Amino acid sequence: MNPDDNLTAVLYGINDLRLEQRPIPVPKDDEVLLKMDVVGICGSDVHYLVHGRIGPFVVEKPMVIGHEAAGTVAKVGRNVTNLKPGDRVAIEPGVGCRKCNYCRGGRYNLCEDMLFCATPPIDGNLARYYVHAADFCFKLPDHVSVEEAALLEPLAVGVHACKRGNVCFGSIVLILGAGPIGLVTLLASKAFGASKIVITDILQSRLDKAKEMGADYSVLVRPDESPDEIMQNIISTLGCRPTISIDCAGVELTTSVAIKTVASGGMVVLVGLGGKPTMNIPISDILLREVDVRGIFRYVNAYPIALEMVASGKIDVKPLITHNYKLEDTMKAFHTSKTGEGNAIKVLIHADPNWNY
Amino acid sequence: MNPDDNLTAVLYGINDLRLEQRPIPVPKDDEVLLKMDVVGICGSDVHYLVHGRIGPFVVEKPMVIGHEAAGTVAKVGRNVTNLKPGDRVAIEPGVGCRKCNYCRGGRYNLCEDMLFCATPPIDGNLARYYVHAADFCFKLPDHVSVEEAALLEPLAVGVHACKRGNVCFGSIVLILGAGPIGLVTLLASKAFGASKIVITDILQSRLDKAKEMGADYSVLVRPDESPDEIMQNIISTLGCRPTISIDCAGVELTTSVAIKTVASGGMVVLVGLGGKPTMNIPISDILLREVDVRGIFRYVNAYPIALEMVASGKIDVKPLITHNYKLEDTMKAFHTSKTGEGNAIKVLIHADPNWNY
Amino acid sequence: MNPDDNLTAVLYGINDLRLEQRPIPVPKDDEVLLKMDVVGICGSDVHYLVHGRIGPFVVEKPMVIGHEAAGTVAKVGRNVTNLKPGDRVAIEPGVGCRKCNYCRGGRYNLCEDMLFCATPPIDGNLARYYVHAADFCFKLPDHVSVEEAALLEPLAVGVHACKRGNVCFGSIVLILGAGPIGLVTLLASKAFGASKIVITDILQSRLDKAKEMGADYSVLVRPDESPDEIMQNIISTLGCRPTISIDCAGVELTTSVAIKTVASGGMVVLVGLGGKPTMNIPISDILLREVDVRGIFRYVNAYPIALEMVASGKIDVKPLITHNYKLEDTMKAFHTSKTGEGNAIKVLIHADPNWNY
Amino acid sequence: MNPDDNLTAVLYGINDLRLEQRPIPVPKDDEVLLKMDVVGICGSDVHYLVHGRIGPFVVEKPMVIGHEAAGTVAKVGRNVTNLKPGDRVAIEPGVGCRKCNYCRGGRYNLCEDMLFCATPPIDGNLARYYVHAADFCFKLPDHVSVEEAALLEPLAVGVHACKRGNVCFGSIVLILGAGPIGLVTLLASKAFGASKIVITDILQSRLDKAKEMGADYSVLVRPDESPDEIMQNIISTLGCRPTISIDCAGVELTTSVAIKTVASGGMVVLVGLGGKPTMNIPISDILLREVDVRGIFRYVNAYPIALEMVASGKIDVKPLITHNYKLEDTMKAFHTSKTGEGNAIKVLIHADPNWNY
Repeated sequence: MNPDDNLTAVLYGINDLRLEQRPIPVPKDDEVLLKMDVVGICGSDVHYLVHGRIGPFVVEKPMVIGHEAAGTVAKVGRNVTNLKPGDRVAIEPGVGCRKCNYCRGGRYNLCEDMLFCATPPIDGNLARYYVHAADFCFKLPDHVSVEEAALLEPLAVGVHACKRGNVCFGSIVLILGAGPIGLVTLLASKAFGASKIVITDILQSRLDKAKEMGADYSVLVRPDESPDEIMQNIISTLGCRPTISIDCAGVELTTSVAIKTVASGGMVVLVGLGGKPTMNIPISDILLREVDVRGIFRYVNAYPIALEMVASGKIDVKPLITHNYKLEDTMKAFHTSKTGEGNAIKVLIHADPNWNY
Repeated sequence: MNPDDNLTAVLYGINDLRLEQRPIPVPKDDEVLLKMDVVGICGSDVHYLVHGRIGPFVVEKPMVIGHEAAGTVAKVGRNVTNLKPGDRVAIEPGVGCRKCNYCRGGRYNLCEDMLFCATPPIDGNLARYYVHAADFCFKLPDHVSVEEAALLEPLAVGVHACKRGNVCFGSIVLILGAGPIGLVTLLASKAFGASKIVITDILQSRLDKAKEMGADYSVLVRPDESPDEIMQNIISTLGCRPTISIDCAGVELTTSVAIKTVASGGMVVLVGLGGKPTMNIPISDILLREVDVRGIFRYVNAYPIALEMVASGKIDVKPLITHNYKLEDTMKAFHTSKTGEGNAIKVLIHADPNWNY
Repeated sequence: MNPDDNLTAVLYGINDLRLEQRPIPVPKDDEVLLKMDVVGICGSDVHYLVHGRIGPFVVEKPMVIGHEAAGTVAKVGRNVTNLKPGDRVAIEPGVGCRKCNYCRGGRYNLCEDMLFCATPPIDGNLARYYVHAADFCFKLPDHVSVEEAALLEPLAVGVHACKRGNVCFGSIVLILGAGPIGLVTLLASKAFGASKIVITDILQSRLDKAKEMGADYSVLVRPDESPDEIMQNIISTLGCRPTISIDCAGVELTTSVAIKTVASGGMVVLVGLGGKPTMNIPISDILLREVDVRGIFRYVNAYPIALEMVASGKIDVKPLITHNYKLEDTMKAFHTSKTGEGNAIKVLIHADPNWNY
Repeated sequence: MNPDDNLTAVLYGINDLRLEQRPIPVPKDDEVLLKMDVVGICGSDVHYLVHGRIGPFVVEKPMVIGHEAAGTVAKVGRNVTNLKPGDRVAIEPGVGCRKCNYCRGGRYNLCEDMLFCATPPIDGNLARYYVHAADFCFKLPDHVSVEEAALLEPLAVGVHACKRGNVCFGSIVLILGAGPIGLVTLLASKAFGASKIVITDILQSRLDKAKEMGADYSVLVRPDESPDEIMQNIISTLGCRPTISIDCAGVELTTSVAIKTVASGGMVVLVGLGGKPTMNIPISDILLREVDVRGIFRYVNAYPIALEMVASGKIDVKPLITHNYKLEDTMKAFHTSKTGEGNAIKVLIHADPNWNY
């Protein structure tokens, strides 16, 4: 531990991301100090960089970016018993208040006092060192890498989507959007036993990746197609309606297709947040065919399941990783993630100064 | 039984409803012949009369109208053991195929081969005589009137809405719309134990009726108010957000208020079908606050519960009845229901020729 | 606040309960100091007094007794925002670790590190002063008395039993045992909308109390009757099988009757812990008739619902209170509770020195 | 179709099973006539042969045996549209009344008027020809054999057990008993995504088969071990408690281990019916640790899922088949099944006269 080096990526405002030294923090009684290993870039990180806000969350003062992360325990607080120095951990980035009805009721992701990395005004963890609640750090088995561990964060979203959507054996799942969240939802759906999975996107390259990662079918969509045309393509590809639709894109077209295409009595899970606060959707399908629609906000109690998926070898998240950068090259990494150049899916930043390309 | 009198109300087309004599039908082995007592007019009946269609259902040939009904068993088919002549019954108007996955799986309301009274091309039961599947006729205890029995049909919608919405003790329920369906949903919510119920409408007279029937709070809405204004009124009236919103109006304003106002992690039940196939709704609330949205199509396995609600005295449906007509005055009855004159809520037509005002 | 008087009831061992002065404790940051008002005696308190243990929980060193309690906030810790001095509160006596999978998953009653008042080695609250986690203290509306608040503790058991058993409108509930837990389960069942409730006991006086508190039917049981005889009596009394059986007695006879009598596909909730670790039960009924059996351990997230039941006036817990003592008469109070003399149901001890008979 | 040959296996009484010619039946409007291909022997068939009864079901007059079956459609009734002559089908052997609350509510396996093959007094289908409700015959894809189709019947039990037990990714499943039902439950658990499966038996040969079919761990049990010893072996093998226990043996020892070993808040599914109407079980574990216990009776809506499991290749039921006989050798087949000689697991009888060893 070099007390002089806590290089940290701080977002000062729109397109103003700076690397600067900050003091190494000290863990409280129930916290651990983590030497950070790897941090993935999420679409939301890019969105804050480009727009300075996501919906009601506005970057009003400098904020450390980053929340898809893994690190190694450097110090433990006085009360910590589940971890010891040297343990490699995946970091669940949001910690609830532990006292409200949501926290007590098993839905801490809805806690109004949630502290979530890199959601303003809470600092994230793209830095050399970071402190976190010890019980939200999950120790990795030896055979799980820190890169895989960083990917547990998006995977947890897929796990939560599948749990809220009751994906199980017999489920016929339609996933709309084959970006990172679509792909982790695909992986999670397979682990939960889905019988058939069809995935859609507007880019053939993404569909190819999805097929490579286990999708049974794919449907290429043109943005000018009508929901009914897309629906017909999906149904004729599958041979039936899906029982569960999971919208990982979050635009009017995909949400409409999700609702129209699902079987009567089926389930639509909304994961992707397209940015528009309102949307024109086929409401009569929800009524006449008793469709259930469920929104997803992050995840809850999903990290242990995501870790088990990876640790057991049932799924492989590594194909998601397309680019790696060192912490000093954070701006380049964000540029790659923002432009998607080189068929970028998941871009990782390595905070460990000893990391080599 | 007068074999020469089976006066029947037949819808021939838009604004073309005729009373005519038809042969008295003969029950099959599993059916009963019913001497009809009373049939309520539903908004959908009026809609067919005025528009000739509801969504995909079109009146293409003459169809007997009526489906909120009660009658007295006149004859029983060979296999019928649950009923005998003279039994007074409430008639559940839709009978599924009994063979498809929906019928076998406990959701026969989604059966694609459902035969439902007065949904084209299936005949309804506004007539002197009518045959029906014996197991979809529910025997009335002596103290339940045929008028109450006819009202079990809309009440079953309220029961189904509450079941799909998990209304129970502790629920804080927002009901949007205080028409007949809003009022039966109010009654059902109370029977299911809802702790507090607030109801909204654009007519003060309807809110007054709702308060009389047990609503804890009411909020008068102006159609030009924004969803946010209405939401604020509701929250300040209740002192908190509702945990369950039930939209019984089905227009963009009410559906938007239902979604925006419900607590995070809450439930929105869509009951009212406003007629527009698509609708602009606050999708980001569904996502960011993990709201569940569930559509309701008619009801399933709800008649026994609705009958128990009335028979036990836990609720009183009689205040819904504002007008009574005899079968010969069917056109007047429809006129009253269509115009809402005389603060009409539920208009009943008495098929029994011996009925007196 | 008299700093010299913190009279406290301490259990030193079997039949060795002493009143002694203890220092007034100081609240931590998230705690409140409570001036205790009233503490009810629970069967478990008496059991510890008489036997020195309940199952795996053994009184090995002096332990303050009492856990059904209400008090008034005297001081608040630094972080406390939900309460202020003078607030009257009901005290939920068990606080989980807030970190384990059970606490995070909404089932903190199963937390292995739960600190629960008067479960060895954790001190209870039968004293003049007591500190407790602020978020496990529920502020009372002005019209709810501290006596009612103390009774929320057993009521919470009834609430949890009804929630685990899915009691709702349409439920036909069989409650076995009309002691305090049977009676609060009766009250909770009514609030949850149960359509019919039948209760059994071996004492007619308890059944009379149950009828007075709202049971629809009662069945007197002789301990030498067979489960089949009792089952037949219940079915002929109800006219059908119950859909939910809740065993509040916890002996082989009542558990057997609960299982045998419930309808096929029905639910049996086990609440009463009879003390025997194993029991001979009708297992073939569970299998051939797909009965669900669910155990209840204390309660979780039930206090707000219990408080709402009382505050709304939907139920009245006051008839449970049969005896009142002042703190100085704790031994008399325990004697009354232990012997059941004077048809004792719930015996309260008033810790407030200003309380008058 | 040879109208002179409908060789049929008829159970006349204890140890009195005869092969005799019976007329070929004629299908009713909603039925199909099936030329039978293969029928598996179930433990219940053997039990009827040896004991003449199972619990309340007694063989009081000659009854055709057999209910794990597949056949080929020979004729279709007038109303049948889902099948045509030549279709190969798996036969779900039980058909409910389609009218009672259980049938309507999605739990037709609890129908009191269920007609179930080879449950007295209903005839089974070990014959050359047999008629059955068309909608309870499931058409096989070309690549699924009739032998696999016959095994869907026991597999459906495993599917139902997993559905009732909520087996999914993340589940750690303990299966007690590695006979045919234990093995199909193992297969179903794997398809439903169980993370780890441990299986127990008293025979090492069965555990070897289970490991071959996908069990992660096995624990050999001696009948004289105590539940606590067996529990400790299982926990030390797994490294934790299972979250779901499925008892496929149904004796006091296995049911006790199932309950004691499962994690707090976990689920115990009872599948095996050991024959004793009552059983001594660790009731305090159910209470103090909030264990759910659910009985299984046959299955409901499980055939389509079982067929999908086999057709998709996710599981392989063929290793269950250890012996094949022709219809003429029915007595030999029952002898093998009864004695278990040759490590018999599943014994099939081929009703097709053209079948060759």
